[in-house]
Amino acid sequence: MAMFRPAAIDWLRRYDGQTAGADGLAAIIVTIMLVPQSLAYAMLAGLPPAAGLYASILPLIAYAAFGSSRTLAVGPVAVVSLMTAAATAEAAVRTGIDPAAAALLLAGLSGVMLLAMAALRLGFVANFLSHPVIGGFITASGLLIAAGQAGHLLGVSARGDTLPAILTSLYDGLVTRGVNWPTLAVGGAALAFLGWGRKGLKPLFRRAGLGPRTAEAAAKAAPAVAVLASIVVVNRLDLAAMGVRVVGVLPAGLPPLTLPPLGLDAVMALAGPAALISLIGFVESVSVAQTLAAKRRQRISADAELVGLGAANIAAAVSGGYPVTGGFARSVVNFDAGAQTPMAGVFTAAGIAAAALFLTPLFRDLPQAVLAATIIVAVLSLVDLKAPLRAWAYARADGLAMVATILGVLLAGVEVGILTGVALSLALFLRHSARPHMAVVGQVPGSQHFRNVDRHAVATSPHVLSVRIDESLYFANARAFEDRIASLVACRPALRHVVLMCPAVNLIDLSALESLEAINRRLAEAGIDFHLSEVKGPVMDRLGHSHFLDMLTGRIFLSQHAAMQALDPVVTAGADDLTMRLPAS
Amino acid sequence: MAMFRPAAIDWLRRYDGQTAGADGLAAIIVTIMLVPQSLAYAMLAGLPPAAGLYASILPLIAYAAFGSSRTLAVGPVAVVSLMTAAATAEAAVRTGIDPAAAALLLAGLSGVMLLAMAALRLGFVANFLSHPVIGGFITASGLLIAAGQAGHLLGVSARGDTLPAILTSLYDGLVTRGVNWPTLAVGGAALAFLGWGRKGLKPLFRRAGLGPRTAEAAAKAAPAVAVLASIVVVNRLDLAAMGVRVVGVLPAGLPPLTLPPLGLDAVMALAGPAALISLIGFVESVSVAQTLAAKRRQRISADAELVGLGAANIAAAVSGGYPVTGGFARSVVNFDAGAQTPMAGVFTAAGIAAAALFLTPLFRDLPQAVLAATIIVAVLSLVDLKAPLRAWAYARADGLAMVATILGVLLAGVEVGILTGVALSLALFLRHSARPHMAVVGQVPGSQHFRNVDRHAVATSPHVLSVRIDESLYFANARAFEDRIASLVACRPALRHVVLMCPAVNLIDLSALESLEAINRRLAEAGIDFHLSEVKGPVMDRLGHSHFLDMLTGRIFLSQHAAMQALDPVVTAGADDLTMRLPAS
Repeated sequence: MAMFRPAAIDWLRRYDGQTAGADGLAAIIVTIMLVPQSLAYAMLAGLPPAAGLYASILPLIAYAAFGSSRTLAVGPVAVVSLMTAAATAEAAVRTGIDPAAAALLLAGLSGVMLLAMAALRLGFVANFLSHPVIGGFITASGLLIAAGQAGHLLGVSARGDTLPAILTSLYDGLVTRGVNWPTLAVGGAALAFLGWGRKGLKPLFRRAGLGPRTAEAAAKAAPAVAVLASIVVVNRLDLAAMGVRVVGVLPAGLPPLTLPPLGLDAVMALAGPAALISLIGFVESVSVAQTLAAKRRQRISADAELVGLGAANIAAAVSGGYPVTGGFARSVVNFDAGAQTPMAGVFTAAGIAAAALFLTPLFRDLPQAVLAATIIVAVLSLVDLKAPLRAWAYARADGLAMVATILGVLLAGVEVGILTGVALSLALFLRHSARPHMAVVGQVPGSQHFRNVDRHAVATSPHVLSVRIDESLYFANARAFEDRIASLVACRPALRHVVLMCPAVNLIDLSALESLEAINRRLAEAGIDFHLSEVKGPVMDRLGHSHFLDMLTGRIFLSQHAAMQALDPVVTAGADDLTMRLPAS
Repeated sequence: MAMFRPAAIDWLRRYDGQTAGADGLAAIIVTIMLVPQSLAYAMLAGLPPAAGLYASILPLIAYAAFGSSRTLAVGPVAVVSLMTAAATAEAAVRTGIDPAAAALLLAGLSGVMLLAMAALRLGFVANFLSHPVIGGFITASGLLIAAGQAGHLLGVSARGDTLPAILTSLYDGLVTRGVNWPTLAVGGAALAFLGWGRKGLKPLFRRAGLGPRTAEAAAKAAPAVAVLASIVVVNRLDLAAMGVRVVGVLPAGLPPLTLPPLGLDAVMALAGPAALISLIGFVESVSVAQTLAAKRRQRISADAELVGLGAANIAAAVSGGYPVTGGFARSVVNFDAGAQTPMAGVFTAAGIAAAALFLTPLFRDLPQAVLAATIIVAVLSLVDLKAPLRAWAYARADGLAMVATILGVLLAGVEVGILTGVALSLALFLRHSARPHMAVVGQVPGSQHFRNVDRHAVATSPHVLSVRIDESLYFANARAFEDRIASLVACRPALRHVVLMCPAVNLIDLSALESLEAINRRLAEAGIDFHLSEVKGPVMDRLGHSHFLDMLTGRIFLSQHAAMQALDPVVTAGADDLTMRLPAS
């Protein structure tokens, strides 16, 4: 295994003042965006608001040192915060562990798992999360998060890991405690402002004379503006006394150095969620990083991303944070604001640290309803309810996997939903490969090319049956394959040769080899020779290790054309007795 | 869904005296073989010996009415008896149900599941039991059964579902109670006689003047001879008084009409084992039935087999039996003895019924050690310890799946072993398809055929990169595929066209479609056109439902040859600037 070489070694060597200026500007914009977001996502994760700030300091520096993306911005994100809330609540019930301690342990476990995946080159495991599953998961999480935060807007608490549980809890809260109108007023105003601001602010700034990119960046400061305005309002009108919940007193200072508690019970309870958080976080990060890298013709390394995210999570575990990953929105802001290197992340960390040191008194009167509004606006932009229809229109299997994931997440929670989606995706793939498409093929006139007799006008021979199987041959389809060959042969009395065309056969396993031997034996008893054509190199190597080639009654041809030339030269020469087949309607 | 039509309708119409004679002769031979076997397997299943006889009466008639094989002989078999013993013991511990009642319920559940599989056309599920998994399961079950029966030979009891448990229990029995020498003498003599008889009896009968088939059939009566001789010895020497365990008093008479108990607890406890017994029994039956049918150019129907086995198990459940399936040894005997139709099964049922009515007093003094000897000789012939080596030599994945199944069955029991084997087989298949083989291809000179540049002497163009991907494109390999295309393009500065040759692509799912779109976009940004060739009909239909064809910068060619003719006519014309590549060493 080659030694791991952090990308930081390369970019640090060429670091200069101009790059530092670009990185610094980007960092200022990201910091203004990240401070309210960190507080909000910590609230979503069911943790003290300070945990959000702490998770946005040391992890950014750790990622900058080991990650490979130039512009990915790591920190707390919505879906991982939701998963953290569910996992720590569950672990608290089962083992009595404090949720904040459980969050540290979760980050630590996730970090160790990501590093282990890097060491074992297991990054490919993330590929088993298909696009429909990820898309469905994000849409459903967005709905879950928005429903849960609606409680904060109304001044009642809404708890639960599933949509029915959240809605029930919301209903109970409304019935027993009623709406807190001042909370709804402040939160509703923030929601309206932020919702409008997503589209309305940029043109406003443009008309005010700002350049397009400056206007875009300035529009991202909307949450910070909403936060500051709401603090002023709450403070002046003393809304806290009227039941508007506020963030309250935050400890001022840098993150505490912490060690996650290590109890076997707690580790067992959190290992599953940590694995899922690692996978989801990794997939999200890599997607974002790849998208941004492609725009500047840079490349990222999946292994380096595993190391970078692993280091970031371990940093979160030892500095009072909770699981972090690369966020889409903040990375795009960082990229658009002109960040050149991961040093922008280090500068952002410094900005957040300054906020933790000096700004915490400011947040005392920050209403939770405004944080909820920032979360709702952010996550609803991720919800795409038409995606399942688009997926279904392309392929039923993809649509089914997406719908199953969405329903699973909404009705049974994140973990069950994702596992259902992955299991269904794999089952549908296996079902497809277990029922292979087979085609009788003939020669496209004037070429050496052979295609399906039902789709193309091709020439065939009454003595030679050429069959193409469109799948690897393995245990799940070997018997169906045997049956199909038997029924194709049964209705052709003049047959003397069967040629199995294998361009799509990428694997022949032992079960399928035994089926081929059975087919060869049965055809021989009927006086028919069995041939193969276009067998690929790796498959041919494998067959060479068996006795099949010795017992084969026919030959192995390099191409289907060579097979037909040898077995029925008349057809390939294009002579008169061509049996022309027209394509099916 | 077409209405199910029992095969019996056809063969009963043409039934005549000559066929009846052939069937009757076969039935006599099978009955002589089946009586001791039924008693032995019931003992193996942990049930009263009569359950074995009862399971060999009504189920045979039910299968004759609905099954499609002419010669399959159903009844109690070794591996299903072992699984029944494990399942009923487990259910007894968990729910307090009596093992005999649990066995009835198990047979009933298995029958209902088999009928449900037939109704839902789910027979293909059995295909997921690959040959290495079935082979490993049978070898390991044979070892488990032989180890368990060794206790009966030594006169101590050996219990347990795993090899360590059985060996520990055997050791404890030997330490605390010691060997019962009369038992060992009788059992050892039977074992030696039956072991020798498998190979030695037929030549003896041949030398005595019998024809080859008669000698073969007569040799199958060896267990019956051992049983009769041991009864005489035990009775005359009164060995039962010396501690030799005997079958004891059997109720004389036809099977009682029973109804399995229906408790939700018991159904829940037995549903899993019943599903596995159904699958294993179905796979075994179909394999045996197919092998025999092919010898006489008959065909069997998987759906009819499901109905036949389902009916047989329901018959077992209502007549004091336990789960049954088609047995290999008895079906071969039935076939070789000349059985023509399933009426042979009906005659056999009559023979066993006669035994149950009139012969039960005879079995009072039958030593259990002799039944154990018949089981050991039968199952050890199924053990094939070299099979894993042969599987490994052909393909590591097959060898691994077989070894995992064997170890799983021996160390953790039948269910865990089979599920481990199936899960590992699927995981290895997915791993293979997740890491697809890709080849840069060039034209085989003088043909229109394109092959791997590393294996064949082919012509390529500096402007056109032709890549063949040897796998369906789906979520598990879409990202790896993107990466490979990117790195292939990166080292070819003169490139103007990339042609993806798709003869092995049997599926493009939504995740892979998005990867193709990303590749198309990235290549376009680098000024390279992206083409596809040899896209199969079903895949092309699917692509037609997406926007991919509108955004594709290049074209879709019917054949790779057509693509090269259009993009770089010089190479295909075989002109001077051919870049000839030699195969790798």
